[in-house]
Amino acid sequence: MEKIRVMIVGYGNVGRGVFAALGNNPDMELTGIVSRSVERVKKELPGTPVLPVEDAAAWKAAFRPDVAILCGGSKDDLPKQGPQLIREVNTVDSFDNHSRIPEYWASMEAAAKAAGHVSVISTGWDPGIFSLERVLAGAFIPGARPYGFYGLGPKGGLSMGHSDALRTIPGVRDARQFTHAIPEAVDRVRRGENPEFQPGDMHTRECFVVLEEGADKEAVTRTILEMPGYFAPYKTTVNFVSQQELDEKYKGFPHDGLVVAAGVTGKGHSAVAEYRCQWESNPEATANVLVAHARAAARLAREGRSGAFTILDIPATYFTTLSREELLKHWM
Amino acid sequence: MEKIRVMIVGYGNVGRGVFAALGNNPDMELTGIVSRSVERVKKELPGTPVLPVEDAAAWKAAFRPDVAILCGGSKDDLPKQGPQLIREVNTVDSFDNHSRIPEYWASMEAAAKAAGHVSVISTGWDPGIFSLERVLAGAFIPGARPYGFYGLGPKGGLSMGHSDALRTIPGVRDARQFTHAIPEAVDRVRRGENPEFQPGDMHTRECFVVLEEGADKEAVTRTILEMPGYFAPYKTTVNFVSQQELDEKYKGFPHDGLVVAAGVTGKGHSAVAEYRCQWESNPEATANVLVAHARAAARLAREGRSGAFTILDIPATYFTTLSREELLKHWM
Repeated sequence: MEKIRVMIVGYGNVGRGVFAALGNNPDMELTGIVSRSVERVKKELPGTPVLPVEDAAAWKAAFRPDVAILCGGSKDDLPKQGPQLIREVNTVDSFDNHSRIPEYWASMEAAAKAAGHVSVISTGWDPGIFSLERVLAGAFIPGARPYGFYGLGPKGGLSMGHSDALRTIPGVRDARQFTHAIPEAVDRVRRGENPEFQPGDMHTRECFVVLEEGADKEAVTRTILEMPGYFAPYKTTVNFVSQQELDEKYKGFPHDGLVVAAGVTGKGHSAVAEYRCQWESNPEATANVLVAHARAAARLAREGRSGAFTILDIPATYFTTLSREELLKHWM
Repeated sequence: MEKIRVMIVGYGNVGRGVFAALGNNPDMELTGIVSRSVERVKKELPGTPVLPVEDAAAWKAAFRPDVAILCGGSKDDLPKQGPQLIREVNTVDSFDNHSRIPEYWASMEAAAKAAGHVSVISTGWDPGIFSLERVLAGAFIPGARPYGFYGLGPKGGLSMGHSDALRTIPGVRDARQFTHAIPEAVDRVRRGENPEFQPGDMHTRECFVVLEEGADKEAVTRTILEMPGYFAPYKTTVNFVSQQELDEKYKGFPHDGLVVAAGVTGKGHSAVAEYRCQWESNPEATANVLVAHARAAARLAREGRSGAFTILDIPATYFTTLSREELLKHWM
């Protein structure tokens, strides 16, 4: 069977994860990478063809991709790149700005329909697997209201967005922020209380900050604790550490989360469903989910489908390489 | 919008659960029940129309069902009823004899295609949700091998099949069997060992038995412990209790389970996914999942689809009453 030809768009942490993930999926092959920093990527991956993202004619001819996996950021890259690239090729992305998903979906739906391409948007583990688990829990358990918790393990989960926010503060040289779920809040949901939470009721935030030479500890602390949206609503702790300590003890991109929903069946019999995932590498997790969705996008396109899809629109058979016979025999 | 007209086939524990579940789903209405024991069901549900299952002409005219939810057993009822009823109406069932699913799928696929009907087979929580979670974990985590555990809570999970098996033993008046997961086995899977388990490595079995007057305790115990398949491969404990104790302390149909799969992403970063559910009423759990699949079956049929489907073939949007706008805005 012919392999699915995949192109990677953007080579940061998620792009690297996709590169590694494609090696574990024998039905797919990487035919090339496009980037805004061709030289940097070429240097990192000497054997791999890399072309500038702007030159669609060139990469279409050279890479002939069935699907492009867009590995750019949701703030600046995807809102522009998505609607442009979908004119040229089927795409999969991890657009994760939850409040803007309806708007992004609409723009991708219109452009994908016009081009006759398939766009799978907003996948990864949240949005993505967690979205699916929320909808399934809501459909299968009457009255269940799904909640999302993050950082349930002892170390918590590294929040990239919050780490970036810390690094914008004057006097901060480097920083990483770990999110922790509040166990009592998880228990309340499990007990079926369906509580009304404020953000600060569900999670706490732990910051590890490396100061610039001579920076003012107290001013930095105050700025962090008062940062609206990011830290002000939360119980936040600030720890000052050396660069070495940060690099050694708080390295990597671990993250984990839980979708939990409780309701009742019949005349008051309790029912609880939970989906939990733990990833030593958050960007690699996203990358693996993206790759499975690239398989789905290629299959949808082969069937002549077009438009914008989410994980909610795609049956599980499209994600797996297993045949119907194998699925019925061993996986049901 | 017109409601989905649902007919219940067979009124045992699952049928009762479906009856209750339909009351929680305002987009669906119960138009009637068919049964082999019309008088018994009429007595239990005075206001509800009940007709004999054999008289298809009568129930089709009276109930005009969009979907029939088949609530019979997998051993004797469904293998016969399924292929007969699918000629008349779209069906959903919880056929749960795992080793015979390929055969059952083939017979339903052929009959459903011939009739132009939709048959959703083998749904509930296992097979059903657990099948979906196994396939998703396998697709999203490279090298992950999903394991199923049952009875993780302190009381364990009531196994109907094993309780029935106990009741066939001479000298046993009544009995209930609770399955317990072995926590160390769960831990081994979570650690990513992907172990080769024998059945007895994953679960233990706890029996609560009420003896007939004058029955031989030791003979009964021996018969239980040596029963091939059911108890011989497991660490099994046998407790003799009074009927009153059984009815008070071990009543109801609680069950719970876990799908857990561990693998690695990239160059050896650990990844673990788990789906856990806990049901105070196992048959009501199955019933609620069946009802969501009845919605999906009606939608598939309205699109002109036909043939046999499993949960693996159906996107989440088909299970939920939420609109695309609501899903994109609040559930992604």
